[in-house]
Amino acid sequence: MWRTTISVSAMSERPNMHQVPSSDTSDAATGGGSAPVREPSHAERCRTLVASASRGALSTLTTDPAGYPYGSVASYAIDECGNPLFFISLMAEHTQNMMHDPRGSLLVAEPVPEGADPLASGRATLIGDLIAVADADRASVRDRYLAANPSSAYYIDFGDFVFYRLVVKAIRYVGGYGRMSWVDDVAYAAAEADPLAGEAAGIIEHMNADHTEAQMLFCRYFGGFPETVSATMSAVDRYGFEMIAVSPTGRNAVRLGFAEPCTTGLQVRQALVAVVGDARRREAAAPV
Amino acid sequence: MWRTTISVSAMSERPNMHQVPSSDTSDAATGGGSAPVREPSHAERCRTLVASASRGALSTLTTDPAGYPYGSVASYAIDECGNPLFFISLMAEHTQNMMHDPRGSLLVAEPVPEGADPLASGRATLIGDLIAVADADRASVRDRYLAANPSSAYYIDFGDFVFYRLVVKAIRYVGGYGRMSWVDDVAYAAAEADPLAGEAAGIIEHMNADHTEAQMLFCRYFGGFPETVSATMSAVDRYGFEMIAVSPTGRNAVRLGFAEPCTTGLQVRQALVAVVGDARRREAAAPV
Repeated sequence: MWRTTISVSAMSERPNMHQVPSSDTSDAATGGGSAPVREPSHAERCRTLVASASRGALSTLTTDPAGYPYGSVASYAIDECGNPLFFISLMAEHTQNMMHDPRGSLLVAEPVPEGADPLASGRATLIGDLIAVADADRASVRDRYLAANPSSAYYIDFGDFVFYRLVVKAIRYVGGYGRMSWVDDVAYAAAEADPLAGEAAGIIEHMNADHTEAQMLFCRYFGGFPETVSATMSAVDRYGFEMIAVSPTGRNAVRLGFAEPCTTGLQVRQALVAVVGDARRREAAAPV
Repeated sequence: MWRTTISVSAMSERPNMHQVPSSDTSDAATGGGSAPVREPSHAERCRTLVASASRGALSTLTTDPAGYPYGSVASYAIDECGNPLFFISLMAEHTQNMMHDPRGSLLVAEPVPEGADPLASGRATLIGDLIAVADADRASVRDRYLAANPSSAYYIDFGDFVFYRLVVKAIRYVGGYGRMSWVDDVAYAAAEADPLAGEAAGIIEHMNADHTEAQMLFCRYFGGFPETVSATMSAVDRYGFEMIAVSPTGRNAVRLGFAEPCTTGLQVRQALVAVVGDARRREAAAPV
């Protein structure tokens, strides 16, 4: 059931990838051939990040002084290709800027927990051209914008506001220290936001409140760290989840993959319950 | 002691300014000559906002594709003129961008309370040229940066990071709906951040937890809304404070000015205690 393990030497760096065999056929800690590590692609991570927020920093080009990059706050929705949609006042600087020069970008950043290092969190910069939404698309764009920004209802029909679309042509993704890349624009347009994004925080909270012993067993028997004494979940997505495993020799990041992608919290729960059973059987057969 | 009142017809709009006389000489609700309303200038509001945060959206210009505005997350400190100071990796896109073209801006936005309208909160865009910090200034800039960003201590001496200064030449301030302007760069450089900025949240919380009756009296006897039935503090700065006054006919924003600027929470407390006494004497003399 568990196919992959990733360990890292420094918690703030990109994990080193280590392939381990399926737990169904051999001991996870011995190494050997296996399916590749499955985790969200950067295109998927970008799409999830952009879809999970509705506010970012819009950069446009000033007219006076000329050609300076100008950052402003903008609420947005996204179209089905992940292009940001803006609803902006004709009086606003950024609107005047984009009418003069269409070049722009939108920066979307993950919320940073209080006291956390802001440079360790994810952010994406979508670069492209800002184009007025065609009349034929206005109704559907309006619906998308209202759904993402309910507080815009009271001015959504104001005559001095306009809809603009950022047609994305380049994407920079930074997922934290050492996890960064330019993301292919076609891959981004085709990517699906993680279906667990809305439930992930609740799953993590529940696992860390009520199932720390199970996580310790996961790390001991499937994660490649048999000396683990405690573990906490740090992330979950459709393909798997990540834990911080603590042992007498240090802290390690562990990623375990689901055998099949999970698209709901219920599927995650069923997968985790099954594996707790597997881990307990291993523990009974060969206690650490 | 109380010199000014501002009422607004719609809570999300810029308050209408109404001059009222000093409460020492006549009834606040009758109108008449008085000192001008004192409130922080936009230059002061910008300086306070920028000094209160240490992270913003940096916009630079891309090299490929060429000339697009590129938003990224950046931690910063400020120098004594309010120019942002950055400590950035040579490998980062924004660093490569600013080495190629110095034009840039920094967007700093107030935190948005959960569920609040993001467009009603304050933000400032500082536009200027990004210039490498001179060797002679490195030690003092390093100290400022470390003080504002303690988590940078572990990489502050890395050789592949550099200090850059955004030399501000134009400033756009948006304080919410209808409160916006271009701020003079010299006024910004000379402005002092509000000395109460760090204590304001605590003062507001205390006043709204323990002194709502006093605020009701302030609004009735000095704020020009004798029918006020409840009031809550929404802001405080060195020059005065603002309340939302609720009466049977609606909600109004009230600003009352301190007779002299208050630079500490203790001074605010002393000023408020004195005025509670004034309000009670007025109430006894002419109950609403």
